[in-house]
Amino acid sequence: VNAKPTGDIQRVVVVGDGGWGTAMAILLAMAGRQVSLWTHDEAYGAVLSESRANPRFLPGFEIPATVRVSADLSTLLSGCDLLVSAVPTEFLRIVWSGHAAHLPAGLPILSLTKGLEAGTDLRPTQVLRELTGARPLGVLSGPNIAREIARGLPAATVVACDDSGLAQRVQASFSSDKFRVYRNPDLAGVELGGALKNVIAIAAGLCDGLELGENAKAALVDRGVKEIARLGERLGGQRRTFFGLSGLGDLMTTCYSRVSRNRTFGERLGRGEAVSDIKASMKQVAEGVKTSVPVHDLMQRHGLALPISEEVYQVIHHGKAPRETVRSLMLRGPKDEAEDLL
Amino acid sequence: VNAKPTGDIQRVVVVGDGGWGTAMAILLAMAGRQVSLWTHDEAYGAVLSESRANPRFLPGFEIPATVRVSADLSTLLSGCDLLVSAVPTEFLRIVWSGHAAHLPAGLPILSLTKGLEAGTDLRPTQVLRELTGARPLGVLSGPNIAREIARGLPAATVVACDDSGLAQRVQASFSSDKFRVYRNPDLAGVELGGALKNVIAIAAGLCDGLELGENAKAALVDRGVKEIARLGERLGGQRRTFFGLSGLGDLMTTCYSRVSRNRTFGERLGRGEAVSDIKASMKQVAEGVKTSVPVHDLMQRHGLALPISEEVYQVIHHGKAPRETVRSLMLRGPKDEAEDLL
Repeated sequence: VNAKPTGDIQRVVVVGDGGWGTAMAILLAMAGRQVSLWTHDEAYGAVLSESRANPRFLPGFEIPATVRVSADLSTLLSGCDLLVSAVPTEFLRIVWSGHAAHLPAGLPILSLTKGLEAGTDLRPTQVLRELTGARPLGVLSGPNIAREIARGLPAATVVACDDSGLAQRVQASFSSDKFRVYRNPDLAGVELGGALKNVIAIAAGLCDGLELGENAKAALVDRGVKEIARLGERLGGQRRTFFGLSGLGDLMTTCYSRVSRNRTFGERLGRGEAVSDIKASMKQVAEGVKTSVPVHDLMQRHGLALPISEEVYQVIHHGKAPRETVRSLMLRGPKDEAEDLL
Repeated sequence: VNAKPTGDIQRVVVVGDGGWGTAMAILLAMAGRQVSLWTHDEAYGAVLSESRANPRFLPGFEIPATVRVSADLSTLLSGCDLLVSAVPTEFLRIVWSGHAAHLPAGLPILSLTKGLEAGTDLRPTQVLRELTGARPLGVLSGPNIAREIARGLPAATVVACDDSGLAQRVQASFSSDKFRVYRNPDLAGVELGGALKNVIAIAAGLCDGLELGENAKAALVDRGVKEIARLGERLGGQRRTFFGLSGLGDLMTTCYSRVSRNRTFGERLGRGEAVSDIKASMKQVAEGVKTSVPVHDLMQRHGLALPISEEVYQVIHHGKAPRETVRSLMLRGPKDEAEDLL
């Protein structure tokens, strides 16, 4: 709490007490912002508030004393410049349905959620638009493992908004010597990169679990980013965004980090554990497990070939044997690389 | 030695007994080709031939009994369909100068070398062209850690030739259910990707050595592939090739594999070891150490910004402190991501 604030976003309410929401609250508080953290669970909110820690979702880090914690959003909104939505995709609609009636007109929301809504296939900011009406919306997305941000390790990220003024304000207010914020006008592309990479990361984890080696894994991740670009472009993103920090950058972190939930989910699948057992043992959702369903729907609706995402879908939801997926991916006929390329 | 040969490349001479040359000899011999291995060192050749192992450069793998080993290339050339050049960049000119006079006209050469020649800044196939005259030339390059190939783990690679017939023959003859070979017509792009990624891999190793975390490393690798594309396109490659297997794919393997020599070199630098000590302790060259010099030359000659490669050059050749390079890379002003993108 010793850095000097820049930019004009001073009061921020982070909605959601998961790992990334908590790390963002810590990051902003250390940069001198006035930060509040909303949790849906009043009892757990009291734990956070009194212990100044989040043992369930971000163990080992201190929540600065200046961060106010509450389960009553209305008490936190006074003077608020920005809401940060750090809610998992599956709870997005229920959480924001509850808040919508109380939100001041024009108060911007910045989404950290990486996924697509089951059933509707909507991006998180599309869900927010539907629920919260006309207001500036944006996403912040990139290779941002929460624990590393909370430790103060250097990272870069991308902000994209439907209002370029908001993007500039977020860039000015969130940037520090440890956290480098780029702007990108392609809101759909930035948001889709963060959602779609989680499915590919499960496939990368399968590679690890099957002990296929670094050669096979790199081939898969390289084809994976093209698969993301293929679907993402069809859904309104710009191709080049998927090769930027919020696409390829986030994909690599998620595919190679030992602590990534999605990669770990795939690794355990590859080692032979059952989907239900892995799910039961994880405290936070592996978003890719859910996202694989809308991706499968979108693939069919748009008539696209997404071989890696489809194998992940078949393994998780139809019990295909992980080792069979590798055969499917490796044994296609020889061909020209250009078919797979940009 | 039980697979059935396909394609019409039956007799192959691999020139060079390093890790990748030896692994390629094993791969081809196991696929039923008649393979010979040339070594410059007659005494060490006798060790290989008698022990059926390469303890110096590929310990732990058996060289099939059918692989003939010799230090006299002329005795191996009879009936040869293809020469595979697996010589480190720094020895390329001296080795092929010695062979040039004895080579049959029209015998194709497939290069596995990943680097640029110091002093001339030439690609390996450009050096081969200069020394060996008119003949079909090609490269095979991709995420191909030698030890994994020798173990029979699955991998994919790219072949690019100045003669499309050769590319098709190599694809048909080298492909197997473990080794997937793509064709790409962009010879310069495939070859440059393999050369330039070694410099970025040293920077990725610096990240590891300085313990900066996965977020920073992914940001660096993502910016690194764009830096490779920027220089590679100027040197005649096609932009999209640098995001393919032989560019991004190989870059990821090299940046994330624990066993990569270039990444390891950077990691040890980042931990504070001196360049001379690291060099003295490594049995095989880290190609990126050499390649950083031509890359620096080319950057200046073409007036390009290659911030990551330049920091690697400054650390290795001008004693810049590794921690300072991070400051240089992280503390540039906030800006639009598009400036860094494709």
